[in-house]
Amino acid sequence: MYFDPVEALERDALAQLQTDRLRATVERAAKSPFYAKRLAEAGLSAASVTSPEDIRKFPLTGKDDLRSNYPYGFLTCDRRELVRLHASSGTTGNPTAVLYTRKDLEQWAALVARCMYSVGMRKGDVFQNIAGYGLFTGGLGIHYGAEWLGCLTIPAGAGNTKRQIKLIQDFEVTALHIIPSYALYFGSVLEKEGIRPEDFPPRIALIGAEPHTDEARKRIEQLLGLRAFNSYGLSEMNGPGVAFECTEQSGMHIWEDAYIVEVIDPVTLEPVPEGQVGELVLTTLTREGMPIIRYRTRDLTRLLPGQCACGRTHRRIDRISGRADDMLIIKGVNIYPMQVEQVLMTMPEVGQNYLIIIEREGYLDQLRIKVEIQDEYFVEDMRGLRSLQEKIAHKLHDEILITPRVDLVQRGTLPQSEGKAKRVVDARETN
Amino acid sequence: MYFDPVEALERDALAQLQTDRLRATVERAAKSPFYAKRLAEAGLSAASVTSPEDIRKFPLTGKDDLRSNYPYGFLTCDRRELVRLHASSGTTGNPTAVLYTRKDLEQWAALVARCMYSVGMRKGDVFQNIAGYGLFTGGLGIHYGAEWLGCLTIPAGAGNTKRQIKLIQDFEVTALHIIPSYALYFGSVLEKEGIRPEDFPPRIALIGAEPHTDEARKRIEQLLGLRAFNSYGLSEMNGPGVAFECTEQSGMHIWEDAYIVEVIDPVTLEPVPEGQVGELVLTTLTREGMPIIRYRTRDLTRLLPGQCACGRTHRRIDRISGRADDMLIIKGVNIYPMQVEQVLMTMPEVGQNYLIIIEREGYLDQLRIKVEIQDEYFVEDMRGLRSLQEKIAHKLHDEILITPRVDLVQRGTLPQSEGKAKRVVDARETN
Repeated sequence: MYFDPVEALERDALAQLQTDRLRATVERAAKSPFYAKRLAEAGLSAASVTSPEDIRKFPLTGKDDLRSNYPYGFLTCDRRELVRLHASSGTTGNPTAVLYTRKDLEQWAALVARCMYSVGMRKGDVFQNIAGYGLFTGGLGIHYGAEWLGCLTIPAGAGNTKRQIKLIQDFEVTALHIIPSYALYFGSVLEKEGIRPEDFPPRIALIGAEPHTDEARKRIEQLLGLRAFNSYGLSEMNGPGVAFECTEQSGMHIWEDAYIVEVIDPVTLEPVPEGQVGELVLTTLTREGMPIIRYRTRDLTRLLPGQCACGRTHRRIDRISGRADDMLIIKGVNIYPMQVEQVLMTMPEVGQNYLIIIEREGYLDQLRIKVEIQDEYFVEDMRGLRSLQEKIAHKLHDEILITPRVDLVQRGTLPQSEGKAKRVVDARETN
Repeated sequence: MYFDPVEALERDALAQLQTDRLRATVERAAKSPFYAKRLAEAGLSAASVTSPEDIRKFPLTGKDDLRSNYPYGFLTCDRRELVRLHASSGTTGNPTAVLYTRKDLEQWAALVARCMYSVGMRKGDVFQNIAGYGLFTGGLGIHYGAEWLGCLTIPAGAGNTKRQIKLIQDFEVTALHIIPSYALYFGSVLEKEGIRPEDFPPRIALIGAEPHTDEARKRIEQLLGLRAFNSYGLSEMNGPGVAFECTEQSGMHIWEDAYIVEVIDPVTLEPVPEGQVGELVLTTLTREGMPIIRYRTRDLTRLLPGQCACGRTHRRIDRISGRADDMLIIKGVNIYPMQVEQVLMTMPEVGQNYLIIIEREGYLDQLRIKVEIQDEYFVEDMRGLRSLQEKIAHKLHDEILITPRVDLVQRGTLPQSEGKAKRVVDARETN
C-alpha cells in the first residue's frame, strides 16, 4: 500500500527516528566550514538534541548564508565524493549551489519515487517529463524518481507542445510532470486541436515548481482529463520530493523521515500555531554532502491539522500561498498573486492566462489585471464585455479589498512561457 | 590502465566474444515484430552465426525501417521493462524512437564512462556537461556516464556562455562536454572577456555530436587551452559512447565488445577495403530492449589500419567526414562541407564561424561562403580585404576544385546556434 513502510510509521517512532537523524545531521553538519563556526558560536552539538523539538535551539539558515558561503562552505565531505551540482538561476551575484553525493542522489530519487507511488504511479506507467532539464532540479530530480520507480521515462523537456502531444498519444503516456501555467496553456492547445479531455491518454499529472491555486488545479484536471497532484520541493532541500499530495488531494504530506518541518512567523521568527499561515522552515535529516539546518524557504503555508484518510502519518502542509517576498502592497493593502488567480480560475469566462501589472499613477500604486477571455465570450459586443469586466473587478474586490483595473484580452495574446510563468510585472519604474 | 580489461582483449578472444554476443543478439532480436519477420524471410537465425563475419549474411536496417515500425516494432521485451525513451528531433512524420531497459542504461553509462576514462578523466574530476538535455541523447547519455565514473557532474545544458564560464571558474571544472561549433564560439567569448587559455581551468573537452575537422579541433584546443577529444555516437546505437579518441588522438576506438563495425559502399552495399571511406554500418551486441542489426548510420568514415599505441585492441575509425546525405554537387563536383571547414580553420585570419550557401544563378548552382574574420584583419583597407578574399577563394579551390564566392564578414555577425550548427544553407528555392 505504501512505497516505504516509513510513510505510516507511528508518530512516536517517527519522533525517535527524527531525533536520531537530527543528531547525526548536526554531527555531520559540523564538518562543514559554515556550520563548524555557526554551531561552535551557539555552543550547540549533536548532544544538544534529545527530541525533534530541540531543533528550535538552532539558528536559522538563510539563502544569504548559502550565497556568501558559495561554493563549498556547506560541504561536509571530500569534494571527490560529489557527483552532482544543481544551482539556482540567479543571474547576478553568486548562485545558490547544491551539492550531492551518490547516496544523496539515491535518497532523493527514492523520495521522488515515493511521491509518485502515493498518487498511483507504478512500474509500467509511461511517464512524460515536461520540464526543463539541466541545473533546474525539477527536470533531473523528477526524472531520476520515475526511473527509480521503473516507469518508461520520456525526457521531453519543456516546449514544442504539438510534439509533446504526439509523443503522449503514440506512447500512450499515463502520467505527466508539468508546470501548472504550462498545463493551462497545454489545455488550450488540446482544445484548439480538437482533442477531447476524455481522449487524452494520461490519467495523472504532477504539477509543481510554481505556486498555484486549487482553482487552477481543477481547471487543469478538466482541460486535460486527468487528476493533478501538487508537488513541492526546492533545490536547497534536494529539489522536488519534499512534500506531495496523496490521492486524497487534501494537502501535501511532508516526508518527516527526511525533513523536520516548522512554520514560523517571518517577522518574529517564532513558531505559529498549527493551522496558521507562516514561513516554512526545513531541516534535512538524511543529506550527506550538504546538510542544512532550519532553512528559511520563504514559502508561505500552514500545517494542516488532523489525520489524513490515506493512513500516512506524516503531517501535511497546505498548498503554497505565495512567497514571503511575493507580497504586493497596493494602497496599503497586502495582496498575494495567488488570491487573484483563485478568483479568476473559478470564472468560466476566463481563459488560461492572466497577468498582474503594478503601475504608478501620480503618487499612488495601481493594480491592473490583464485577463485572457474564452473565445465564446470575446464578442464584438461592447456592452457584454463591459459587464464582464465589471464582474471580474467586483469579484476581485471581494477577495483583495481593492478594485483593480481589468483589461480583457483575446486568448493567446499574453506572454506564454514554457518555464515558470511570470505572473506579476512591476511597471512602476518605467512609467 | 584501462577502465575495462575488455579494451585490450586479444583479437581472437574479441572475435569469440563478438560471435557469442551476435548469436545472442540475433536470438533476442527475433522476439521483436520487425526482426521476427525479417529474419524468417531471410531464413536466418542465431544458428547462422559462427563468426563475426557472418554479420554480412544479414540484411541491412535503415532509418526508414525504424520510422515505419514506430513506436514498438523493434521491441523485444515487455513494455513494462522499459525505463527510457529517446527520440530524434524530426518535426515531420514519425520520429526515430529508441527504447532502453534498465540494463541498457547501465551498459550505456559504462561505455560512456569507459570513453571518459580513456582520455584521462577520473573520479574527482569536475565535469561540466554543456549540452542540451531531454530527448537528445548527447545530454543525458554523457551525464550518466560521468556520474557512473564518479565525477562531480554539472548539468549546465546549452547556452548562457557567461554563466557557463562563471561555473567553470568557481568550481574549477576540469573537463567539459561541448559541441564543436559552440566550443569555437565559446573561445571567442573567452577572448572578448580577456580570459587567457592558460587561465581557463578545464584540461579536457569532449567534442562531438557534429562532424568537425582536425583543424577545428586544434583551434578549439588553442582557444580553450585544453585537449579536445572526438566523441562519436548516434541515438540508434544508444547515443554517445560508440567510439572515442584515446589520448593518442589518432582515430576513435569503436568498442567492438558492444558493436560490430562494417564500412560499406553506400551504392553497391559491398564492404570497402580497410582504409577506404564508406558508410559506417553498426550492429549492437549488448542491447536488450531494442537490438539493431546492421544499421546504416549514413555517416562516412574509414577503418584506420594498424595498432594504436595506447594498447587498446579495438579498431579505430577516422573522424566522420560527413553524412552520406550531406554531399553537395556543385557544377558537377562532389563537395563535403567538412572540406570547406578544413581549409578555413587552418587560416589565422579566419574567425570561429562560417556559413556555406548554395545559390542558383540562371541554370547554374553557385557556392558562396561567408567567413567571419578576426578583428585585427577586419580593417577598412579595401585592398587588404580583397586580397584576403582571393587568398581564401584560392585555398578553397585547391581543396574542392571550384572557386566559390567568398564574403568576409565581421566577427559575431553570422547566426550562432547553441545546439548543432547549421553550416549549409540551400538558398536555391528562395532565389
